Amino acid sequence: MLFIKTPVKGMPEQLPEDMVIREYVMRQIKDAYRLYGFNLIETPLIEHIENLTGKQGGENEKLIFKILKRGEKLAESGADDLCDSGLRYDLTVPLARFYANNMDKLPNPFKAFQMGYSFRAERPQKGRFRQFIQCDIDILGDATNLAEIELILATSEMLSRLNLGKFKVRINDRRLLKTMALASGLPADQLDTVFIILDKMDKVGLDGVRDMLKEEGFDAAAVEKYVALYQGMNDTYQSSRSYLTERGMTDFDPAVTDNLDEIIRVSADLLQDKAQIVFDPTLVRGMSYYTGPIFEVELETFGSSVAGGGRYDDMIGKYLGRSVPACGFSIGFERIFAVLKDNHFTVPDTHENVAILIDKKAPKEKVRTAIEEASVLRAQGNRVLISWRNSNAKFQKEQLKTAGYTRFIEIFKENYS
Amino acid sequence: MLFIKTPVKGMPEQLPEDMVIREYVMRQIKDAYRLYGFNLIETPLIEHIENLTGKQGGENEKLIFKILKRGEKLAESGADDLCDSGLRYDLTVPLARFYANNMDKLPNPFKAFQMGYSFRAERPQKGRFRQFIQCDIDILGDATNLAEIELILATSEMLSRLNLGKFKVRINDRRLLKTMALASGLPADQLDTVFIILDKMDKVGLDGVRDMLKEEGFDAAAVEKYVALYQGMNDTYQSSRSYLTERGMTDFDPAVTDNLDEIIRVSADLLQDKAQIVFDPTLVRGMSYYTGPIFEVELETFGSSVAGGGRYDDMIGKYLGRSVPACGFSIGFERIFAVLKDNHFTVPDTHENVAILIDKKAPKEKVRTAIEEASVLRAQGNRVLISWRNSNAKFQKEQLKTAGYTRFIEIFKENYS
Repeated sequence: MLFIKTPVKGMPEQLPEDMVIREYVMRQIKDAYRLYGFNLIETPLIEHIENLTGKQGGENEKLIFKILKRGEKLAESGADDLCDSGLRYDLTVPLARFYANNMDKLPNPFKAFQMGYSFRAERPQKGRFRQFIQCDIDILGDATNLAEIELILATSEMLSRLNLGKFKVRINDRRLLKTMALASGLPADQLDTVFIILDKMDKVGLDGVRDMLKEEGFDAAAVEKYVALYQGMNDTYQSSRSYLTERGMTDFDPAVTDNLDEIIRVSADLLQDKAQIVFDPTLVRGMSYYTGPIFEVELETFGSSVAGGGRYDDMIGKYLGRSVPACGFSIGFERIFAVLKDNHFTVPDTHENVAILIDKKAPKEKVRTAIEEASVLRAQGNRVLISWRNSNAKFQKEQLKTAGYTRFIEIFKENYS
Repeated sequence: MLFIKTPVKGMPEQLPEDMVIREYVMRQIKDAYRLYGFNLIETPLIEHIENLTGKQGGENEKLIFKILKRGEKLAESGADDLCDSGLRYDLTVPLARFYANNMDKLPNPFKAFQMGYSFRAERPQKGRFRQFIQCDIDILGDATNLAEIELILATSEMLSRLNLGKFKVRINDRRLLKTMALASGLPADQLDTVFIILDKMDKVGLDGVRDMLKEEGFDAAAVEKYVALYQGMNDTYQSSRSYLTERGMTDFDPAVTDNLDEIIRVSADLLQDKAQIVFDPTLVRGMSYYTGPIFEVELETFGSSVAGGGRYDDMIGKYLGRSVPACGFSIGFERIFAVLKDNHFTVPDTHENVAILIDKKAPKEKVRTAIEEASVLRAQGNRVLISWRNSNAKFQKEQLKTAGYTRFIEIFKENYS
């Protein structure tokens, strides 16, 4: 029989030192959201193929790991019909199904929190795997911006606990994005193309956006008018209404800007100097299912985007045949883990870590005494490893020091301990 | 598009109230084993089909969820060759592969701890799912009974933390099982059949075992001799050596009994009245890969087996082409969860749980004040849910009480709050 030592392509293995960090981060995230009244739930890793291919997953639907039918079902199937389930590629499709199936047992509004593996058959890259932890928080059944504010505050609590320094929350609204494009004379049926280009602003700059829009064949006057709306931007806007008014726009829905500006104002007041909350009219967010406010959270110290989300009122209700207001955040767990690991983060440890190393030839009574000593130390709250002393004890102790052991008790064959 | 509201057959969904218990139990288990120097690791959920079908998984190999190849690989495959990976059915196959692949980065001996989902396409039953949490602790690279003793002590710590009452650890050794059968004259090539019948002792009694062995066609004299070895048993043996000697057996390996009796003596001394450690010559344990001591842990109060394991020296090394001593325990997480749930276990909660319910028509300033109040309460360590007050507020509050909220702050439209 041939055994294969390496993991399946793109599959992650977590070594002990990484798991210590990962476990710590997971607990901090779970504890923070629990404090804010979110409910941890779990949905299955395996989902109906019909639900996974319902056109809500965009490009991810091309990356599904499909599961072969079994037994009779497989025997009765043709080549095109081998699978009726697959591994989930996100937590949103399962959440919508879960909510429809369990709604009568859940509070309304329902504040959901999920953390678990998703799977995508993407090309593996350094630090990017085909199995990865996703972490989603969602408020279902609340159409008001209390949902957005709570999501921002809870996420801020989570980031504070991890000591990730100051962060910036960028906010925009899908409806304002549309208003700005339409008011400039860009065509309503090509807004997705416009936004894909606008989304590149931080890489190509405003001139780059102008060039790309023109290359795409949009009307030059419309492009100039559109680009003018983003001229001379900075990164400190606190009001979408002022922003638009100052640029001479009048034909926007004040209910939309007021809603957005209230989110910014209340969050900024409560978070004070922990975070900067800004209106960013260039923020797009990839998924087209967003219907209202959208966010992105960025760590200032590490220059890394660690969370994002928005309101998507038309999706959760698909299983129920009616609209369910919904607003959610995805926390980039794997990103946060990578930032902490790259910065040599050490998990705060309240235990003393003691390693008792016993010579393999030590007499039985000494082994027994060592086991008893370990019990006493553990009862005092110390973490104690009891292990045989290797012939290369120096290397062994170096390795254990790396793993956090600070105190060594060595039990020798003779009585020179 | 047709969406399906119910989960895929046999797949579990975890509601908030169950997740509170599950999360608590997981943390207690993780913390207990960490205190004993075990290292949490994670292996992928997807494994090579070659590794999953290597005959180590016994009956479980018939229950694999196989994953369809993708793209070109699938196009090039025949009907018998559609899959090159599958979902793991246990944590032992992945552990063996992980150890072979990462051995140079791991301490020796390596104390491994895993907790994660496995998948088996079994017939779903009440409380039994096709996706379930497994929890394994293993010590690799230690041929001595220090491994067995540490596993028993750490598992005892875990059970104590969960307040599951007194428990009993039954111990036997695969080699003694064999010795007893062979000394009675039962045939060496049919020991598996003998042990499957012996394993039914707790259901059919000693007479039942005698009848079944005879029905199976074993020599009557051998059966009588064998059954005599188990005559008049009780549940308090502390020494396998005395047990065998008292029954007139002489042809056993004293190294095996002394090893076993030392495990019993040291564990019993250290655990005192927390647990009862007994030699149980009828203990079989299903999997045939065990090579030495085997255990089973049973809760006395709930009459439930919650952990089991043993030494399996010939398996981990298969990927390395050499023997690696190994000893492991499987914790029945789903069983423990079921026991706690059935007994209406409530998780100790140090927070005060406060629900702020706001009338939907309350003025904006009152909403804002409520959000500020929530922030203050949270900063004081309370868990605070801030939510809209439903028209049926009585039902809403009942639901929230069930979810653990003990204090309600209601914000009304008018100032009669």
